[in-house]
Amino acid sequence: MKTKATILITNDDGIHAEGILILARALKSDYEVHVVAPEAEMSAVGHAITLSSPLRVHEVRKEGAFFGYAVAGTPADCVKIAIQELLPQVPDVVLSGINLGANLGVNVLYSGTVSAATEGAFLGVPSAAISLATLRDPDFTFAAEFSRSLVRFMLDKGLKKGTALNVNIPAVSADKIRGICFTRQGTARFEEHFERRTDPRGKVYYWLTGETPVENGGSDTDSAALRENNVSITPIFYDLTCHDELARLQKGCRPSLLS
Amino acid sequence: MKTKATILITNDDGIHAEGILILARALKSDYEVHVVAPEAEMSAVGHAITLSSPLRVHEVRKEGAFFGYAVAGTPADCVKIAIQELLPQVPDVVLSGINLGANLGVNVLYSGTVSAATEGAFLGVPSAAISLATLRDPDFTFAAEFSRSLVRFMLDKGLKKGTALNVNIPAVSADKIRGICFTRQGTARFEEHFERRTDPRGKVYYWLTGETPVENGGSDTDSAALRENNVSITPIFYDLTCHDELARLQKGCRPSLLS
Repeated sequence: MKTKATILITNDDGIHAEGILILARALKSDYEVHVVAPEAEMSAVGHAITLSSPLRVHEVRKEGAFFGYAVAGTPADCVKIAIQELLPQVPDVVLSGINLGANLGVNVLYSGTVSAATEGAFLGVPSAAISLATLRDPDFTFAAEFSRSLVRFMLDKGLKKGTALNVNIPAVSADKIRGICFTRQGTARFEEHFERRTDPRGKVYYWLTGETPVENGGSDTDSAALRENNVSITPIFYDLTCHDELARLQKGCRPSLLS
Repeated sequence: MKTKATILITNDDGIHAEGILILARALKSDYEVHVVAPEAEMSAVGHAITLSSPLRVHEVRKEGAFFGYAVAGTPADCVKIAIQELLPQVPDVVLSGINLGANLGVNVLYSGTVSAATEGAFLGVPSAAISLATLRDPDFTFAAEFSRSLVRFMLDKGLKKGTALNVNIPAVSADKIRGICFTRQGTARFEEHFERRTDPRGKVYYWLTGETPVENGGSDTDSAALRENNVSITPIFYDLTCHDELARLQKGCRPSLLS
């Protein structure tokens, strides 16, 4: 008799976020679901890991949804400690989400949600980050259903070793979804500035603000797909090498460097 | 009369680290040097940015080396706030370092040092992360000299827009350096595990430990170059797309996903 596949679920919004509950509920009848997630909200922590302080872990039970572990650490910490310490076996799939807000373009590097999936991929497990493209009043109905299809797909078809999927889902009802696009990471980024303020004791502090997305125009990117109400799926890998610049440098630049 | 080029220096070991002092001293006679760095040690923060709390900034003066700003934030925060708020103009080059300890392979994604350079590249400035491959008793002599050559190289030759250089320098004297290799990011990673302990109040906590590098064997990688006492220079870019997996997925997988 085949045992159920094992799914590790994490996120960067914290173990008490609605998105993780939705995902656990959507998958628990078909899979053995484990939840290991940050005890607090951890957005924009990027691929941070905790080295200089120890990790605390405590159990969390969500009636009718999951029994899991809250970790006083980052999403990447959660995936590491889940796979290497807390889970009885290596999971078949790692899912990170469902995140509130899209993770697109350059912002992928800042994303705790995506980093959890990349960490799963490092450790050899097919992994996906799932984000719903809205920051308020989320309707998770389609995203939950799609996540079930995604897990089946990952288990059936597999992924290239070390690869994770960065999945972004439009915040519209199922009948408005046009399709699914396999995309490349675009160069969408936020136009940011700092707002300078003075506290009641006369000291200056700064808020990062002004987050209007800057579009890049490419039609095969994550943002372009999402804009047209497609689910965007970008396979990502942990190689940052810029191969064309490497070729250019190798061709002619070496001697001048030490002159 | 040509004005001096402007260099922004940051790091992830904090503004009081020796590596930043060395770098500022090596460059200050030829360039206008600005230092904006974390007020505390920030290793392994990855590409974290601070969104949910404001950033505090205070001035730091190091006699004979630099006048700069300490930021209560991450290396990526420092580069953002330096370029967008603190510096009188956009710098010509961003340098992050000199870091204690190499930044190689997969570990690049965890590195605050490298993320600062990537952030500089995001913002359109030629940027480099400089690491010296030792954790103790560093001799910065060659690394300081090499950093001067590197800045000249970056100013003279330029870099592809959006690209940063991840530079790793062997911890040996100048006469032992064999050469310079332009490399790709390898897949070197640490073999990690968690050590479970109990605190005096009976609560469990975990330390991440066991950091023996796992080698990948490729001869054109950052680690391979460094192992043979070469300076390794890897051009990096913020695109995580796995293009061959994208091609595979685009070819045949779409329909099955929503079945």
